Amino acid sequence: MMIVMTPDAGEAEIAAVRKRLETTGVHVLVMPGELTTAIGAIGDPEGVRTLGLEGMAGVDRVVPISRPYKLASLELNHHEPSTFEVNGRRVGGGSTFCLIAGPCTVESREQTLDVARVVKAGGASMLRGGAFKPRTSPFAFKGLGVPALEILAEAREETGLPIVTEFLDTQHADAIARYADVVQIGARNMQNYALLEVAGKLGKPVLLKRGLSSSLDELLMAADYVLKEGNERVMLCERGIRTFETATRFTLDLSAVPWLKLHTHLPVIVDPSHASGDRRLVEPLGRAAAAVGADGIIVEVHQDPDVALCDGPQALYGRDFADFAARVAAHAGLDGRTVA
Amino acid sequence: MMIVMTPDAGEAEIAAVRKRLETTGVHVLVMPGELTTAIGAIGDPEGVRTLGLEGMAGVDRVVPISRPYKLASLELNHHEPSTFEVNGRRVGGGSTFCLIAGPCTVESREQTLDVARVVKAGGASMLRGGAFKPRTSPFAFKGLGVPALEILAEAREETGLPIVTEFLDTQHADAIARYADVVQIGARNMQNYALLEVAGKLGKPVLLKRGLSSSLDELLMAADYVLKEGNERVMLCERGIRTFETATRFTLDLSAVPWLKLHTHLPVIVDPSHASGDRRLVEPLGRAAAAVGADGIIVEVHQDPDVALCDGPQALYGRDFADFAARVAAHAGLDGRTVA
Amino acid sequence: MMIVMTPDAGEAEIAAVRKRLETTGVHVLVMPGELTTAIGAIGDPEGVRTLGLEGMAGVDRVVPISRPYKLASLELNHHEPSTFEVNGRRVGGGSTFCLIAGPCTVESREQTLDVARVVKAGGASMLRGGAFKPRTSPFAFKGLGVPALEILAEAREETGLPIVTEFLDTQHADAIARYADVVQIGARNMQNYALLEVAGKLGKPVLLKRGLSSSLDELLMAADYVLKEGNERVMLCERGIRTFETATRFTLDLSAVPWLKLHTHLPVIVDPSHASGDRRLVEPLGRAAAAVGADGIIVEVHQDPDVALCDGPQALYGRDFADFAARVAAHAGLDGRTVA
Amino acid sequence: MMIVMTPDAGEAEIAAVRKRLETTGVHVLVMPGELTTAIGAIGDPEGVRTLGLEGMAGVDRVVPISRPYKLASLELNHHEPSTFEVNGRRVGGGSTFCLIAGPCTVESREQTLDVARVVKAGGASMLRGGAFKPRTSPFAFKGLGVPALEILAEAREETGLPIVTEFLDTQHADAIARYADVVQIGARNMQNYALLEVAGKLGKPVLLKRGLSSSLDELLMAADYVLKEGNERVMLCERGIRTFETATRFTLDLSAVPWLKLHTHLPVIVDPSHASGDRRLVEPLGRAAAAVGADGIIVEVHQDPDVALCDGPQALYGRDFADFAARVAAHAGLDGRTVA
Repeated sequence: MMIVMTPDAGEAEIAAVRKRLETTGVHVLVMPGELTTAIGAIGDPEGVRTLGLEGMAGVDRVVPISRPYKLASLELNHHEPSTFEVNGRRVGGGSTFCLIAGPCTVESREQTLDVARVVKAGGASMLRGGAFKPRTSPFAFKGLGVPALEILAEAREETGLPIVTEFLDTQHADAIARYADVVQIGARNMQNYALLEVAGKLGKPVLLKRGLSSSLDELLMAADYVLKEGNERVMLCERGIRTFETATRFTLDLSAVPWLKLHTHLPVIVDPSHASGDRRLVEPLGRAAAAVGADGIIVEVHQDPDVALCDGPQALYGRDFADFAARVAAHAGLDGRTVA
Repeated sequence: MMIVMTPDAGEAEIAAVRKRLETTGVHVLVMPGELTTAIGAIGDPEGVRTLGLEGMAGVDRVVPISRPYKLASLELNHHEPSTFEVNGRRVGGGSTFCLIAGPCTVESREQTLDVARVVKAGGASMLRGGAFKPRTSPFAFKGLGVPALEILAEAREETGLPIVTEFLDTQHADAIARYADVVQIGARNMQNYALLEVAGKLGKPVLLKRGLSSSLDELLMAADYVLKEGNERVMLCERGIRTFETATRFTLDLSAVPWLKLHTHLPVIVDPSHASGDRRLVEPLGRAAAAVGADGIIVEVHQDPDVALCDGPQALYGRDFADFAARVAAHAGLDGRTVA
Repeated sequence: MMIVMTPDAGEAEIAAVRKRLETTGVHVLVMPGELTTAIGAIGDPEGVRTLGLEGMAGVDRVVPISRPYKLASLELNHHEPSTFEVNGRRVGGGSTFCLIAGPCTVESREQTLDVARVVKAGGASMLRGGAFKPRTSPFAFKGLGVPALEILAEAREETGLPIVTEFLDTQHADAIARYADVVQIGARNMQNYALLEVAGKLGKPVLLKRGLSSSLDELLMAADYVLKEGNERVMLCERGIRTFETATRFTLDLSAVPWLKLHTHLPVIVDPSHASGDRRLVEPLGRAAAAVGADGIIVEVHQDPDVALCDGPQALYGRDFADFAARVAAHAGLDGRTVA
Repeated sequence: MMIVMTPDAGEAEIAAVRKRLETTGVHVLVMPGELTTAIGAIGDPEGVRTLGLEGMAGVDRVVPISRPYKLASLELNHHEPSTFEVNGRRVGGGSTFCLIAGPCTVESREQTLDVARVVKAGGASMLRGGAFKPRTSPFAFKGLGVPALEILAEAREETGLPIVTEFLDTQHADAIARYADVVQIGARNMQNYALLEVAGKLGKPVLLKRGLSSSLDELLMAADYVLKEGNERVMLCERGIRTFETATRFTLDLSAVPWLKLHTHLPVIVDPSHASGDRRLVEPLGRAAAAVGADGIIVEVHQDPDVALCDGPQALYGRDFADFAARVAAHAGLDGRTVA
């Protein structure tokens, strides 16, 4: 932690900061500069953070030196990426690529089983599908609920694909725990801490989506909420951030993938469907996600997107899925990875 | 709703869009243009929204004409602003200005009562104070919980000030309902729909903070979630949005206030403390909020911000509060408003 | 300057950074921490910046401690705000408020003289008007050029109001120098360094608009470009930044005003017309600018905005200007300022 | 063009809009809706744009239906991508991938020739290098100027690589025209229209970088400025946009590439070096650019980035370039493209 004083801070103000820092037992170094004095605190950053130094007279800024997340940090895992299995599919670790596909929403048994068969045939690793849907307007369709989970279970039974589905209300915890293989936390809930803690306790792998205006530091702190419950199977998901550009629905931040690889041991999945909102962009962005080093992608597929109840324009046509999957896999294959 | 076709869309594609629109009973107008054809749908926008037109062949864009929110719209209230009372204090309607002040967090009985007395003496309308605190890192202080609510109730008893406190987990519903006079929904929970619905049912006025990357349309749709529970006492709160600028913690969007006045009947409160993160900016921004036409402000005050457990740098000194309040009130007074 | 090493940086890497720093003569302090080592460089920040330390092995980040701008900094002016006169009108310094008004573009002699009389009668301090207009599309109207400058000069002759007009091409330097009283640099040219240097040499006060995605640090560095030419009469102008919110054309960053007051001695003007793009927001934002402590505002006025060639929707009606000016002035008057 | 009226607009206001529209000869359709009336104008969008309809009484919004750019649009080129040669290297068109590499800045003859040999040996298509450098601070190194251009010409002589170099001041037009093979317009100058027009007249291919907060529509309108001078050889360059995320210097918007492919015939180049500011991200982002369908990349290379005068941390090591190039080329090769 570095405390930068204002140019007109006097000796008394510097001494006051020094004194307060020393109450925490950190080592303190005063560094007088040309214009301003900086004070370094070496030791316990958490203790220093609670001192409220930013509010003291003569303090201009407090500059953190250490990263704000802990359990998700690459150092914590001795610079090794985490890897784990979901019903036999390996996630993370650099030898596999995870292809999650399925409908935005479970609309009916037939629609879901049809898509499940198509994505299975195309080589998918897992099946996605929404039972509970968060909607911006309270007057929109909110998903079929528990019956949708039962349909997903039937699709798993038939295809062998593990189920990825969103958890958005702590009241649904039992149902989600019973049916899901991977518990998805949506972007709008990335900082719903009550939900994160319950998700961490369900004993299932968690797919944590980045909030649409969350920094990568905040994403890793949100992962810490899940990890501290003893759940080590967390996948991060980049799904586009909100920027000034409206040509695409969100701006897919693919730089986040290699940045995360430098800072966390957790696997990173990319969602090109929600980021772009346009199926014509999903294939190129899926290829780019594989090329940039993501551990997998999650995409929406529908047999007839024109009649989808939700997000039809971004869903791939079922008939195109196998080709899509092969092209994406070819890019992942260039550095030796095979679809899980 | 206006459907804009791509320049190369043919007759068959235009006919297909027309046909699907007509299934909903809307009136359809085809408008051939120089480069592209546009198709207008007049009537039921919700029905049209669920048709998935964006995914049809030949469709370039679907441009909504009507606003996406309903219950919060100014038209719904016959172009009259809403006004209501909180324990005798009038909110909204143009004759009063609501001054909400208090500590970020209830740290102790003594600290809270001290601040409550100071803000009461300075002329505040209501007392704010956090019992449950959402924290970005799972390792930070999370508030005293129910004992904090009891302390706030004691402060209300002594000062007569209604209590504004944050509701962040549906498990706390009973406690919040018992102690709070105004139920605050924090920015990170603006799209936590499960929470919004429970908040709407508590029978208390709700202070709904704008999400840090939420558009104003989304804020009004979130208000719809509360309003549709039959709760008409909703205050909106602008508290800064996330932009590229990091000189201030967030960018306070004061243009939102007059924009909201043109589009919704709900009162609008401004939070300059969280927006700026720096008490030196809170006073000028509080004055600007009054000048721009906000129905009130909510600010943080601490007797000794240097030792605050949370957000000290943005808290006003208790000793400065009365002066601050008088200066802000003078700006509100220029168009005839008095502090509630 | 603080150099933060990666957690796995070794002794050799730390020694290499230390050695390179020492070549510049700065004082070096090595601060070993729990996870990472930080190295402080005390002395000449410019010398250190050119060392390319970010590229060295084992370096995680280089954190600047001193501010990147120099001539514009408040310290440089001994913590006193700058104040200067434009044809007898005082700008900056806390006793006056500068009201700049006029048409977006000079469209004709009659239109310009009409508006000039109206804003003069309403109490304006200066007349704005565009002769050369930057346009996003190459097919849009670009201004009348030099004849527009002559019309503005005639308006000055009649009303006594100094002329503020945009300078956007170094080829127009002579004409601008001949006619303008204040040389405006538009937002899109804030980092057009060739233009800034020429503007600095014209010997006229400069109104420098913030780029639409420029940080405040960058705005002050751009001011340094003008100031280093020996021109001390620079006004900064906040005119809205580009964010995700599209309800208003830009997001007016009023927090920038008190932030700038803490960091620079230069006066700060606010442009609510371009920020909002909607005249219904211009009045409340003009009042807010006065309340937040700006040294003035610049607004667009047109006798008949419905037929304006440029930006009609944001222009105030000429007939409303005097009322508008009085309301804004009342807010400035609350802290003792009168219109210049 | 669609004009949406406010819900309370009356017959007279609708008639006034209709009447003004009809003055331009467009075909007008009035569409009364449930809440609001919309008015469609079919025909000449430019004429309608200059009517100032947004400012008329009763008008809520004017929604453009046609795209704002013309010459750059895909339709204009009959849905065929443009392709052209630069000294024998083919750019655009889907069969080649253009690999532009070289130092950020020409620092010396030796440094430049060394890098030129390395990138030539690694298979680059063109050599980049800055002679004139735009700098945020007026006190930073600004490039060697014309002597740098002479050094670049010598490098071209030896390696055969065409030269890409930035044009930032119309005063340098003759020198740039004499030495450059590709004229680069930097991000900060994307809306410097005076410069764009001169660049369009130099008779050389132009590499136009996207402004750091410019929308894709604005990028294409800027391209129109160059194209309307009769210069058809324009390459667009995505180089990262400014967002709230500060983990990377900018956010590389790779979705822009397939979006541009849907809307313009111009080739698209990606600059991962400036976007990320960190060489550890340049390789993965270079691969992703190839995978997402870009027509090429432009990257910075330095023999010894630790001592680079400018942007060292983002420069690739010369010794790593050949491997880097091979890996990127492999991704481009998956859809049949070879390095130009």
